[in-house]
Formats: sequence, structure tokens, C-alpha cells
Amino acid sequence: MKIESVDFFYLAMPEVTLEADGSQDALLVRVQAGGHVGYGECEAAPLPSIAAFVCPQSHGACQPVSASVLGRSLDDPRDIAAIAADVAYNSMDVLQAAHTFSGIEMALWDILGKARGEPVWKLLGYTGNHAKTPYASLLFGDDAQQTLARARDAMARGFAAVKFGWGPIGRGSAADDAAHFMAAREAIGPDGVLLVDVGQIFVDDVARAAERLQALEAARVTWLEEPFHASALEEYAALSRRCASVRLAGGEGAHNFSMARHLIDYGGIGYVQIDCGRIGGIGPAKQVADHAVAKGVTYVNHTFTSHLALSASLQPFAGLADHRICEYPAAPKALAVELTGNHIERDASGQVRAPDAPGLGITVDAQTVRRYQLDTELRVAGRTLYRSPAFEA
Amino acid sequence: MKIESVDFFYLAMPEVTLEADGSQDALLVRVQAGGHVGYGECEAAPLPSIAAFVCPQSHGACQPVSASVLGRSLDDPRDIAAIAADVAYNSMDVLQAAHTFSGIEMALWDILGKARGEPVWKLLGYTGNHAKTPYASLLFGDDAQQTLARARDAMARGFAAVKFGWGPIGRGSAADDAAHFMAAREAIGPDGVLLVDVGQIFVDDVARAAERLQALEAARVTWLEEPFHASALEEYAALSRRCASVRLAGGEGAHNFSMARHLIDYGGIGYVQIDCGRIGGIGPAKQVADHAVAKGVTYVNHTFTSHLALSASLQPFAGLADHRICEYPAAPKALAVELTGNHIERDASGQVRAPDAPGLGITVDAQTVRRYQLDTELRVAGRTLYRSPAFEA
Repeated sequence: MKIESVDFFYLAMPEVTLEADGSQDALLVRVQAGGHVGYGECEAAPLPSIAAFVCPQSHGACQPVSASVLGRSLDDPRDIAAIAADVAYNSMDVLQAAHTFSGIEMALWDILGKARGEPVWKLLGYTGNHAKTPYASLLFGDDAQQTLARARDAMARGFAAVKFGWGPIGRGSAADDAAHFMAAREAIGPDGVLLVDVGQIFVDDVARAAERLQALEAARVTWLEEPFHASALEEYAALSRRCASVRLAGGEGAHNFSMARHLIDYGGIGYVQIDCGRIGGIGPAKQVADHAVAKGVTYVNHTFTSHLALSASLQPFAGLADHRICEYPAAPKALAVELTGNHIERDASGQVRAPDAPGLGITVDAQTVRRYQLDTELRVAGRTLYRSPAFEA
Repeated sequence: MKIESVDFFYLAMPEVTLEADGSQDALLVRVQAGGHVGYGECEAAPLPSIAAFVCPQSHGACQPVSASVLGRSLDDPRDIAAIAADVAYNSMDVLQAAHTFSGIEMALWDILGKARGEPVWKLLGYTGNHAKTPYASLLFGDDAQQTLARARDAMARGFAAVKFGWGPIGRGSAADDAAHFMAAREAIGPDGVLLVDVGQIFVDDVARAAERLQALEAARVTWLEEPFHASALEEYAALSRRCASVRLAGGEGAHNFSMARHLIDYGGIGYVQIDCGRIGGIGPAKQVADHAVAKGVTYVNHTFTSHLALSASLQPFAGLADHRICEYPAAPKALAVELTGNHIERDASGQVRAPDAPGLGITVDAQTVRRYQLDTELRVAGRTLYRSPAFEA
């Protein structure tokens, strides 16, 4: 097969607020090759990501992503790796390129799986597709009572694991934060899995992060996620040395395999969280999963958008029976729900699995794409480099 | 002062080829605050960089760079650091943001220096402005004879140091490469400083890179630059342990302080090369210089474009007397030469220094901007988010 076309669809909710909810817009990617259509989703700012695909070349190491993708052969997983290597090299100086390519790469696996009639996790070399325990990803309430109410609601919806993130944590005192952690534990009961995500709030301040450790451990929090900015390896390492029962988690900001590897090898994290929509797709995510297994670290997906992204993010660790926790978007915006024609539902025991259907096993809803699509145009020197394509069912 | 406006000017040569020459286009940034005008230059793909400034917000951690810059106070270097921290946090998920902000940050220093009547290196805390030995940055020839001729030409133009990069190195045999290294040494004589840049050609293959070490050391090459991709810390470390006299150099791909720090702390490089147009500007570059001093590593600028970028890149190590080697664009395209009204000329002894004039000390040529500007327009959902601004003298 040859890669014939790559199309980007910029979708957004009518109103996009500053809340920490990544499902308010979406950058859907459609790739066509050999009569097959594959889909992927960049977890990225849509406009710069589209620009990185169509931009004029600046020099040999600053070429648009399109230069390394269009017209290429696609018959084997090695072809995907070869294209990825060319993107990394030819677009070395286009910082946004990894985010742009992430959605394309997913779509290439989707096509290859459809062409072979096999789910992507099989193409990755896995023989089993193991059930995962989804956690509800929620935002901390404005106060501890609101956090408690949100946790109770998640338990009522059948979740056995809950992650709270962002909100007021790290902005006030350690005692304020402790009240949120204890409220969440109270709501989910002694057996529920409780996870905390602070969204880089401590930047590089180990002491301020460490002030929260005692309360996190008293509330039996399994992991503390992203205490620092994505590259703060020394700070991760320093904080991890001060943890007794709680482990550090991070990796969603990784835009290549090496960044995630360094959080494991130098940062001392216990859970590595990979967003296939940022790290360059499913291939580098699988590399991280292999490295995590070798290092005794647990792999977890990072997914806050649609079930297309969820399917892609489940593939890299579908075959790992002992890596059970899985991020599951618990309250996405309508756009993210309606984007896919089918969904990865929880089974009777509350577990989820990657689809067993060919490719990523997720269909895209044409009406949703048309309803939420933003008309977008990029022009340079009299040439239209990009104009929103029409989406046919 | 308040930051009143930020304007991007996308300039390009009439023809932009795939040669490894970053001076074929330019993204000039003009900032206005308190009646002062400052300039900076992103060493980046122009279209995605502009898009990252104007894009619609996706969520709280995926805001356009403009959200953290426009309307901000600018009275002190700490204001620049505060703006930089907000860009890193509010645009956490806009991968391109660091490249976009780099040119803005330079312009903020330029304004602050002009307002105070002091060169930027003084604002950075340096008391001296030390001479640097510029090296001519050249591309390897197609064969060893062409490399020899180019080296002779550079010596004839008065350079005491020459760096060869890219071209055929690493694409053929180690013996082919050795012939280039020896030809360059022959041309520059026993006293010339010889540097080699292989532009990530070995990706992550330590063995292939190591095959060149003997010839590099026989040709008395001072540094081997960028053998691997920018995040390949383990490979840098493994190769550095096999070096006898030659040292590794890297860092131009760093888009934050941490990345450069990790090349020093984990990668074992001997020379850290920072492009202020990529790392987020002059502030994080100065942080790298401080860290380099503490670790016994030599700081070097990375500059392949205009003398505006050169001035910005000299500031972070202007005060370091022992860090003497300096990248000096030896054969830039006309656009990069004509962009500035004045230039950082070599003195009688062939040395260069950062300007002693206020700010960055470089003027921008209005005619050049108008001559090379590419008419650019970005539209989303019926709104024009960006249209090439006019440049008044």
C-alpha cells in the first residue's frame, strides 16, 4: 500500500474554557492507503499541529511532517517505524512535529490492522488482550466537600478507582490539600484505588511537594502524578527518595521514547503514563512499555479525550496482564463522546479491554465531525497550504 | 512598561532548499513596550511558531503563547522570568511554544536594555564582556578535496577555527569520513581549531559513532557535535566514555534548561551549545551557562542565522572569559546578512564580542524585512487570527 492522503479535522466545542479538560477540542486525523481508511487523534493544539504538517520547508532538518509521510509504503510495522524515524530526522527542528505525527501514526496502525484483519495489539506482538481496571479521571472540587461528592458519584457509577487532578491542589496550604485527599478516601471507602494528579503545580520545588507526602500516604494514595514539569528529572528523583508508600507517576508530557525512559531511569517514577497522541503514536509507546517491564515500572495510558484515543492508548500495554490500571475518560465533553460511532464499554465486572476488532476497532461518526468542525485556512505567499477538508461518511 | 504588541515577520529567500542551512528563512519578532521597540528571532519553523502564538485555546494548559505575554509588565529581569514561567505552564501542551517564545524573550531583554541604557549582558549580571574566537561554520564538501578547499578558504578569510558539519559524514564508511577529517586538518594547519558536527546522523548507534573516534582524534578534532538525537542521553554517555582526547558537544536541540542540563549531567558532554532562538531565549541560556561553569563544561553559542540572533546568543556567556569558542555564521544567505543594519564584525585579531550598546545593540533593516516577507494568513472559524503585519522603519 501507498499512503495516498492525510487529512486533519479540527473540531471544537462551541465554548472552550480554561478548565483542565482536554476533551474540549480534538484534532482528528484520517489517512487513506490501499483502499483502507485509518483514524488517529493528536492530543495537541490543533492549529500548530496542522501547521507543522503543511508548513514550507526551512532547511533539510526543518521540513514539514508531510514530507516524510505522503507517498510512503505501508505494508509492515517496520514501515511505520521507518516513517517515524524519517519524521524525527527530517523534522528535527520542527518542535511541534511529534504531536502532529502522533495522530498520523495511530492511523497507520489502524490501516495496517484493517488490511491484515488483526487488532493492533496483535501487530505489536502481544498474544493476549488483558482486562484493565479503569479509573475515573476527575477534577478536584473547589473545596473538600465538592471533592467528596464527586468521588461518591464516581463510585455510584461503578468505578473501583478514582483519580483526582488539578483544581486547588498546590495553590493553598498543605493542610487544605490534605482535606481533599482525606475526603476522597472517605468517599471511595477503604478498598478503592485513589490516585492524585497535581499537573506540574510545584514546577521544580521539591520541598513544597514533599510537604504533601504525609497526607498522601495517610490517605493511601497509590500515586502522585506530575508534581513537577516534564523534564525535572532531578526533582522527580529527589521526591521519589522521600516517598514511603506512595509512588510518583509521570510521562504524559513525553514527546519521544527517551523522555519517558529518563523519567524511569533517572526520575525514579513507579508508574509511567503515556499519551499516544503526544509521544509520536503507538510505536514509541510500546517501546516505553517494554522498557517499563524491564525496569519493574508499571505502564499506564494517559487519555482524556475520545474512545479513538482510548483504543490507541490501550494497545501498547494490552498484552501486559500485571499492568492493570487504565485511565478512562469519565466525564468528557459531548464532542469526545459523539466523535466515535462505538465505545469501549466497561464489562459486567467494570473492566475494559482494547477492541478485538481489526485495527483500532473504532468508527468515526461523520455527523459529529461535520457538526464540530472549525473552518480553518492557512495561506503563505499566495498559496493555500491547508483548508478544512470535507468529511464524507 | 506594559507589553503592548508582539508582531511576527516571516521572511524567506526566494528559493529554500534542503541543504542544512538554517539561514534560508527567518522568523523575526518585534515587541513594543513603553515606547521602546525590541527585536528577537526564533530559530524555528515560522508557520507552526506563529500558530502557537495565535491559536485558539484548547484548555487551561494548552493556551496560545500570546495569553501569557500580551499586556504583561516589563520593568525588571524578574518580569521576563515570570512571563517565561507562565508560558511554560499555560502552554504546557503546546509543544511549539518554546520555539515561539524564544524570539519574544530576546526582544523583551532588548527592550529592557534599551530602557535602562545597558547591554543585555550587564542585565544578566556580568561585569565584563570578553572576546570570543569565532569559528567558521561550514558544510563538509561532497568529497575530501572539496572539504579541503572550503577549509583553506575559511583560513584565507582569517578564521583560526573551523567547524565542518553534515554533508556525507556518517552516510558512508568510517574511512571515507576519516579522509574528510584529515583534509580539514591539512588545510587549517597544526594550530587551527577543528570542530566536527554530524547532525544526529548516528541516531542512537554508539558503535557506528565510535568507529569514527580514532580518526577524529588523529585529526585533533576538539569536539564531535551531535552524534545522536537530542534526547539520547545514554548514547552520549556511552560514547563520551570511549573518547580519549575528543569531547562531545550538543545542546542545540534543547528547548528548555533541563534538556541542556541533562546532556551535561547524564550525557557527559564537554561543550554545551545553546541556541537562544530555541531554548526559550536568553534567560534559560544563562541558566545553562551557570550550570556549565559549575560542572566544568564549556558553554558555546549555536547560531546559524542573523547577527540579531548572534548578539542574543553571545549575551549568556559574554562574561565568561574562559569560554572562548563562538559559532559565527560564515556563509549565511543574503536575507540573514541584510536583515540587520549593523553587524558584529571581527576585530583586528579576529575576535568578536557582544555589542556594548543598549539592549542587543542590533538594528533591523526595514527594506530587508519588506523585501523577503511572505504574506501569511491564519484563519479559524471565520476569524483572521494572523495576517502578516506591515513593517515600518
